[in-house]
Amino acid sequence: MTATTDALPAIAPLDEDAMARARARWETRAKPPGALGRLEGVAVHLAGITGQCPPPTPHRPAVAVFAADHGVVASGASAWPVEITVAMAQTMAAGAAAVNAFARSIDAPTVVVDVGIATPYEATEGIRRHRVRGGTADLSVGPAMTREEAVAAVSVGRTIAAALIEDGHDCLIGGEMGIGNTTAAAAVIGSIAAVEAEVVTGAGAGVPVGGLDHKRALVAAALERVRHLDDPMGTLAEVGGLEIAALAGFYLEGAHRQVPIVIDGVIALAALCAAETLVPGVADRAVAGHRSAEPAATVALDHLGLVPLLDLDLRLGEGTGACLAQPLLVAAARALAEMADLPEG
Amino acid sequence: MTATTDALPAIAPLDEDAMARARARWETRAKPPGALGRLEGVAVHLAGITGQCPPPTPHRPAVAVFAADHGVVASGASAWPVEITVAMAQTMAAGAAAVNAFARSIDAPTVVVDVGIATPYEATEGIRRHRVRGGTADLSVGPAMTREEAVAAVSVGRTIAAALIEDGHDCLIGGEMGIGNTTAAAAVIGSIAAVEAEVVTGAGAGVPVGGLDHKRALVAAALERVRHLDDPMGTLAEVGGLEIAALAGFYLEGAHRQVPIVIDGVIALAALCAAETLVPGVADRAVAGHRSAEPAATVALDHLGLVPLLDLDLRLGEGTGACLAQPLLVAAARALAEMADLPEG
Repeated sequence: MTATTDALPAIAPLDEDAMARARARWETRAKPPGALGRLEGVAVHLAGITGQCPPPTPHRPAVAVFAADHGVVASGASAWPVEITVAMAQTMAAGAAAVNAFARSIDAPTVVVDVGIATPYEATEGIRRHRVRGGTADLSVGPAMTREEAVAAVSVGRTIAAALIEDGHDCLIGGEMGIGNTTAAAAVIGSIAAVEAEVVTGAGAGVPVGGLDHKRALVAAALERVRHLDDPMGTLAEVGGLEIAALAGFYLEGAHRQVPIVIDGVIALAALCAAETLVPGVADRAVAGHRSAEPAATVALDHLGLVPLLDLDLRLGEGTGACLAQPLLVAAARALAEMADLPEG
Repeated sequence: MTATTDALPAIAPLDEDAMARARARWETRAKPPGALGRLEGVAVHLAGITGQCPPPTPHRPAVAVFAADHGVVASGASAWPVEITVAMAQTMAAGAAAVNAFARSIDAPTVVVDVGIATPYEATEGIRRHRVRGGTADLSVGPAMTREEAVAAVSVGRTIAAALIEDGHDCLIGGEMGIGNTTAAAAVIGSIAAVEAEVVTGAGAGVPVGGLDHKRALVAAALERVRHLDDPMGTLAEVGGLEIAALAGFYLEGAHRQVPIVIDGVIALAALCAAETLVPGVADRAVAGHRSAEPAATVALDHLGLVPLLDLDLRLGEGTGACLAQPLLVAAARALAEMADLPEG
């Protein structure tokens, strides 16, 4: 492996002992065995992630939204113009996007990070500038970015996660904004799960200007180029996106620091797939928040062996679905910690 | 109809104008059309329930747990002894049941109401005494209670709901505790949905001492008795439970006062089915919180035309599943209220 990969953080396996203690603790809580269904598994998972039983309640979540543009939009990948990325990043910085409302409803701050917005804009306090490059190149015709740029974007995500955890946040939610990024996500997931473009390509935020068949062709061209590439960071650079790479780093750092990470929709899942190829073990530490309506999301969930908590037909991204799932982690942890022993009958 | 039924509160239809305004408002929010999936429908529903657009955020929920016993336990309906009802009511009064942990996680108080606990216990501040009778009679051999007792239990639920709303609570979650109550719930749902005992009878909190076939026979005997009874309150009295009747009243009052009601599992759904037969329109104002693992829950959801928000294999009751769903109402309402208009592309 190269020095780049060596520099990625180590990820410990889940703490089996803490998980066994959590299972045993559930058995004696004041309820019939298994009656809290999947919530019981969530608390056991949190014990495994944090190494504590009962696991601490993740009551200080934080949301980081990574924004970047995609050269493939020039080839008709999206229904939306590239300028929407910066417009929505500014809307998020102003606190007026869906993710902001959802984040406020779980008392989480939202950090907006420019990791590669193409359109010039005036500096604003609400957007943190960590721009690696001004959007990717067109992944349907050549590498989206260099390997070094992918490494730099991963590093941005790690830096943001580390800072949030050092600020006391105990649950990380990653989001993204990037017109064209369902095309990149489909390519990343298709390449890692070894699935064809027809299976992973969906309408994204709306049927693209070039049509859905054209979008499939763009994804297929990207997949063809990396079919025999046995290099995780190289694949991410070839067909990924700057925000996808940053999210991968964000998850890696959270997993490394044994903080729960809640995964959003298809873009987040692409990042998690990429992160898992970079450092195996990160997916074991991830909680799948919801099942996006985008087909590649289900491919990624199956590939990673994850079953999401929510299925509400969301297809917005931004981190919205992960925000909605976070209260379930709180409830699960609190129940395991706060419930009495089974009463004597 | 009798004076009893006339005394039940009127329930207005959903406010179609507010719902139309909510749909129109979603169309211009900063996101692709429909991208928030079922959350958009939740906010539209809240607009219809409250008559306001955007609907107010239901940030002051309250949980009321109605506890009562069931004579059918003497016939082997449950895996658990009748004394568990009072033990769990006391655990809830002490704040140490699952519902308490979940309620705290949404900043909701939990009110515990004795509407018919059979086992004597020392008075405690944490349990409100509104006992109509000390548990029902055995519904497999005769009427569970008199019609007057059913009316009184409905009235208890209405009183509790009215007090919570007058205290400023803007979202009502009903829960229950009653060993044997999945048998009563199966009978109520089976009779109202006109479905046989085989379809509606499940293991409840564990396979009953008499076996599942025996539980089915108990439900079948109850269903046979009310098969041709065209009297909603009479049916509730014959095969229901005191906490089921109280929950029906709780929902009726919440619906009457145009406050969102979030429905829990199979017992809550039995109460909602009963409430809908008493005053049609209450189910239109109900948000189904989750899909219980108990088979009668799905029968009731289908009968009422409700699609639950969560499906997490819960089968505990107490109001737990409804508590877990409540943050989705908050997120939906906040998003519709707080999101910016679509940016210019």
